[in-house]
Amino acid sequence: MSGNTFGKLFTVTTFGESHGAALGCVIDGCPPGLELCEEDMQYDLDRRKPGTSRYTTQRREADEVRILSGVFEGRTTGTPIGLLIENIDQRSKDYSKIATQFRPAHADYTYHHKFGERDYRGGGRSSARETAMRVAAGAVARKFLLHRLGITVRGYLSQLGPIKAETLDWEQVHQNPFFCPDSSKVPEMEAYMKALVKEGNSIGARINVVAEGVPPGLGEPVFDRLDADLAHALMSINAVKGVEIGAGFGCIDQKGTQHRDEMTPEGFLSNQAGGILGGISSGQPILASIALKPTSSLRLPGRSIDVDGNPVEIITTGRHDPCVGIRATPIAEAMMAIVLMDHYLRHRGQNADVRVTTPVLPQL
Amino acid sequence: MSGNTFGKLFTVTTFGESHGAALGCVIDGCPPGLELCEEDMQYDLDRRKPGTSRYTTQRREADEVRILSGVFEGRTTGTPIGLLIENIDQRSKDYSKIATQFRPAHADYTYHHKFGERDYRGGGRSSARETAMRVAAGAVARKFLLHRLGITVRGYLSQLGPIKAETLDWEQVHQNPFFCPDSSKVPEMEAYMKALVKEGNSIGARINVVAEGVPPGLGEPVFDRLDADLAHALMSINAVKGVEIGAGFGCIDQKGTQHRDEMTPEGFLSNQAGGILGGISSGQPILASIALKPTSSLRLPGRSIDVDGNPVEIITTGRHDPCVGIRATPIAEAMMAIVLMDHYLRHRGQNADVRVTTPVLPQL
Amino acid sequence: MSGNTFGKLFTVTTFGESHGAALGCVIDGCPPGLELCEEDMQYDLDRRKPGTSRYTTQRREADEVRILSGVFEGRTTGTPIGLLIENIDQRSKDYSKIATQFRPAHADYTYHHKFGERDYRGGGRSSARETAMRVAAGAVARKFLLHRLGITVRGYLSQLGPIKAETLDWEQVHQNPFFCPDSSKVPEMEAYMKALVKEGNSIGARINVVAEGVPPGLGEPVFDRLDADLAHALMSINAVKGVEIGAGFGCIDQKGTQHRDEMTPEGFLSNQAGGILGGISSGQPILASIALKPTSSLRLPGRSIDVDGNPVEIITTGRHDPCVGIRATPIAEAMMAIVLMDHYLRHRGQNADVRVTTPVLPQL
Amino acid sequence: MSGNTFGKLFTVTTFGESHGAALGCVIDGCPPGLELCEEDMQYDLDRRKPGTSRYTTQRREADEVRILSGVFEGRTTGTPIGLLIENIDQRSKDYSKIATQFRPAHADYTYHHKFGERDYRGGGRSSARETAMRVAAGAVARKFLLHRLGITVRGYLSQLGPIKAETLDWEQVHQNPFFCPDSSKVPEMEAYMKALVKEGNSIGARINVVAEGVPPGLGEPVFDRLDADLAHALMSINAVKGVEIGAGFGCIDQKGTQHRDEMTPEGFLSNQAGGILGGISSGQPILASIALKPTSSLRLPGRSIDVDGNPVEIITTGRHDPCVGIRATPIAEAMMAIVLMDHYLRHRGQNADVRVTTPVLPQL
Repeated sequence: MSGNTFGKLFTVTTFGESHGAALGCVIDGCPPGLELCEEDMQYDLDRRKPGTSRYTTQRREADEVRILSGVFEGRTTGTPIGLLIENIDQRSKDYSKIATQFRPAHADYTYHHKFGERDYRGGGRSSARETAMRVAAGAVARKFLLHRLGITVRGYLSQLGPIKAETLDWEQVHQNPFFCPDSSKVPEMEAYMKALVKEGNSIGARINVVAEGVPPGLGEPVFDRLDADLAHALMSINAVKGVEIGAGFGCIDQKGTQHRDEMTPEGFLSNQAGGILGGISSGQPILASIALKPTSSLRLPGRSIDVDGNPVEIITTGRHDPCVGIRATPIAEAMMAIVLMDHYLRHRGQNADVRVTTPVLPQL
Repeated sequence: MSGNTFGKLFTVTTFGESHGAALGCVIDGCPPGLELCEEDMQYDLDRRKPGTSRYTTQRREADEVRILSGVFEGRTTGTPIGLLIENIDQRSKDYSKIATQFRPAHADYTYHHKFGERDYRGGGRSSARETAMRVAAGAVARKFLLHRLGITVRGYLSQLGPIKAETLDWEQVHQNPFFCPDSSKVPEMEAYMKALVKEGNSIGARINVVAEGVPPGLGEPVFDRLDADLAHALMSINAVKGVEIGAGFGCIDQKGTQHRDEMTPEGFLSNQAGGILGGISSGQPILASIALKPTSSLRLPGRSIDVDGNPVEIITTGRHDPCVGIRATPIAEAMMAIVLMDHYLRHRGQNADVRVTTPVLPQL
Repeated sequence: MSGNTFGKLFTVTTFGESHGAALGCVIDGCPPGLELCEEDMQYDLDRRKPGTSRYTTQRREADEVRILSGVFEGRTTGTPIGLLIENIDQRSKDYSKIATQFRPAHADYTYHHKFGERDYRGGGRSSARETAMRVAAGAVARKFLLHRLGITVRGYLSQLGPIKAETLDWEQVHQNPFFCPDSSKVPEMEAYMKALVKEGNSIGARINVVAEGVPPGLGEPVFDRLDADLAHALMSINAVKGVEIGAGFGCIDQKGTQHRDEMTPEGFLSNQAGGILGGISSGQPILASIALKPTSSLRLPGRSIDVDGNPVEIITTGRHDPCVGIRATPIAEAMMAIVLMDHYLRHRGQNADVRVTTPVLPQL
Repeated sequence: MSGNTFGKLFTVTTFGESHGAALGCVIDGCPPGLELCEEDMQYDLDRRKPGTSRYTTQRREADEVRILSGVFEGRTTGTPIGLLIENIDQRSKDYSKIATQFRPAHADYTYHHKFGERDYRGGGRSSARETAMRVAAGAVARKFLLHRLGITVRGYLSQLGPIKAETLDWEQVHQNPFFCPDSSKVPEMEAYMKALVKEGNSIGARINVVAEGVPPGLGEPVFDRLDADLAHALMSINAVKGVEIGAGFGCIDQKGTQHRDEMTPEGFLSNQAGGILGGISSGQPILASIALKPTSSLRLPGRSIDVDGNPVEIITTGRHDPCVGIRATPIAEAMMAIVLMDHYLRHRGQNADVRVTTPVLPQL
């Protein structure tokens, strides 16, 4: 099936190029009866939006989403939900050079070899601008998860280049432009970013996402394990190079006695597993962490080739995020919400009848 | 679609429980005309097989695979390839206790809550024994990739608990029971494992997988990027808690100038990207790395609950791998091969007509 | 996967309600490099458009399609093609009554029971208006099939109620408002329709669709046979109650000697099979025929119930087609084209390497 | 996805050639907790089995199915159910000639052109023998539908060549080798078949299938309408050339007043729709009818070509059904059951929460 569709029962299909006419999305399989309006999506879209701080690209987009279908009198009808964001601030002229040159570490070279044709303006389909639609679709999933099941999905930036957040205060996450949960690190991050922008360079980041209130039972082994689908979803976000669940790479030098999360009637005693055992949610918080690479759109010149194979030197001017990780938090939340939503529907499709007398362990 | 099927054009569906009658697999979409016989799969199956060294479970299975369909006169016919391995060494008695108790960090508790019913013998469907079929299917993909496209897929253990391989000598990988490419570390690993077995504990590991000879163009953005599908495939392997592509989590504190792989007519100057740009293969080697948790089947007692929610103490006797990562190399290779195979077919389905005059960069 | 998506490699996803903001479509998997513009779709859309003759609904819609993505400088790029038609002539007031009553033989009752919620205006999602997007998507498939493979897909009305076309003159099909290939029957059809409209009643019809130039080899047994996918596609069109391939129901009292299409080096001697053997195209013309029921929107009163289960009498006023079959020809062509396109891509995904020395039989 | 898989949540994947080692099937997505054993499938398999009357092929197969996985202590576990039937009576020698010749109206020519390779023994994968596995999978669906939802799925032969059943007495269906519900026609059918066998010819048939007790709400418009998926499923059965729902082709010359099924609080007043409105079940019986072509394996010589394109004369000796329609009743029932099962799970995946106060109309 389509590489631009994610999910099996709750499916999200996106379309649109960075500098094309519009971005769009079709959500199919959404349960009917959910109250939904544009504002539900706009909040998350605004969190992802460029131009909101000096540390993100200065491209200005209203990113106003329109619901075209699937909602009637304020509630979803169960038919496909069509969403549209018209592109406004396109400024194609900034990008004219890249028609014949491949920017290093961008998708230019690979799209060229795959398709022959490519819309080179602003990265076309490979631009992170596409993720606006994931955020919009994720907002629908998040609303259902929260209102019907009490599930929350929240993320934060846990590391910006060399600077790590050391405390997790959810209140702080939206008090600074970095989605950083440790306010004591914000000044350091600000200074770091200022120097970086001046240098013309970019930096990587780490984002953590947490879902709380997820019931045990979600996940479809052996291939569509919940962790495998989360890895798929999160790795499909632009610039992501790594995905961890729970202890992640930390488990390599853990011993079994350290990693196994013991259970008592009062709950699990730890959460090394990140809330997933055997590919199925355990009722503990789902913990995922991702690594985002530094963007490759730099003012510092880099070596590359053109479409004829000749060497060229490339300098990327224009408006770019020095740290794409900063705006990635709402995107990662959206993808996790979409995965959980899809798995909730898949699970009840097969297992709606199942009644278990064993108590669900409380979250500690 | 089915959670037990992987792939879209080259599809692999597995079935079977650890102590059921048999393990099976259906491969659909394999191109016709490929020479194929049981021996092609047996080599990889034997590499994965339990009981081959003192560091793996002593369960003894012949793991002899039978081709039931889809091959005629030694060549694939394009119809589904049915594979079967009968289970022989079942010893159900070893597992009788777990019918009513949930082993910590196993899938017992989550399968119970998902399905109500579960085949508790040897972990049933959640056992790593299921991966035998992935290895068999992967062998078909690997043969096609190698014979038709010259692509190789190889893996190795790069870290066993605290011990890291520091050199990569492919010749060494099959000279020791750990798939370790650095022979100087083998004695240390042997000593470590001996102590671990004595202690009754287990340890995590890291496996790297590399595909060479992959042409540029494979991958289906925006959701079925090659890296996203690899993350899905690799995270779906039992015990995997993290997946990296290229620089992986190392990119967090890289600067853009450090991460971007510059290009010259002679080739890419580095491979931080791990051979994938914008979700599409670049022609460089595909580099993936995974973290495997320490198994939770330990002789050391652990706290847990039973099906009625009462606290119990669990000791896992029986035959278990003290480091499941050791046998994971052929499994990880198989999953990468399946992903590449599927994407090769998907790519030529859409893009078989594309002709590009730009030269493909040589691998450095 | 989504019930609003058709196809596996060439996928068509539609959204939109009859009286919502817009109708939309996402085509994914289209090969890159195909010249495409709005006009390519507009021709077929205009053939399907309401209000073009006195025998179809008088609702007036410009049905102007906009390409939102996936096309750059006049050629497809291989990324998803987003299409949009804004709804203009909505006149919601005409439909206010059906909010609480179920029109007999419409989808009102079944949508109500499935979803609880429904957009009752003009039939909402169940309106045949949705098929405009199938026609637009079909035009893309038809262009590729024609320009790249020389395949034509054409349809005609072969029966209008009791009146059967007795000759097939392709030139005539577009010379009359019925898509009738037998001009001698047109006056009779006109008279019949006039009387029908006066009576306030409706009538069924039969449409035949023919694809010529299809190479042998398309179709994916055993479930996705070409005929099975055609049956799926054609039966998914509003009002269709039957699908035949080749001899269709006529084969019931045929003998084997009569039905089997003998082969000679000069070609097949007959085409009872309708161009499909064992679920795979044979190189003969693909022949399909469908039955369309009479619309149930009648001025003549009918018995029904309301949402509380009380009996009501329903009279449908407003603008309706007295024979929905009349406008169905372009829709049936579109669905056949989409199926052929999808199967062409699927076939070459798996079998692009196959070389056969046996000659392809010429079409007689 | 795989052309050998049917269904989206309840998926059925079959493999195996007529004269290969075995036939197999994987059912995924079956709800857990269903009592299931081999006998549940054997009853239906025996009804389909060859060699049970003088009017069917004399090939003798025990068709004994083994459950390999997915069932534990007599109940399904929710994991994939692997099924296997070993082939016994293979007699490959009967079929040696067809290696280089294409039997008219068989799949030989089309498989050859699609795949290059083919297992020519007994038709290989294109043999109707494959349908044994559909019957086995269908039995699982039927058991769930009956035991959990009270849905019955039953079929009968309504026409054998020129002879039509005129009454429908379900009791009679299993009292004769034709699945004919009108006992008064059985002697005529017997005489007809005797003459046909003597002549060396074959004949077509019509099968009707009826599902009762189906709740309103099943079906996923716009493409996966219940009728569209039924058409797909039924047309995928070997030899089927036409599918009708409800009035089928009879609707062509019906008027709207005749076709629309009026509703009263006591129920629908007719069932022209065949239990499906707008692609969704209405709560009325689901009515489908299919046409099966006469088999092309005849003792009477036919013209054809060989793999080099030379003309040949073909006589098919060996064991063949003179009317493949006779054994098709259990197959058609199985495919309808699989479709209903899949749609039931899909429906509750999306709509399990929907509560409607409008009464469901009783079946009249």
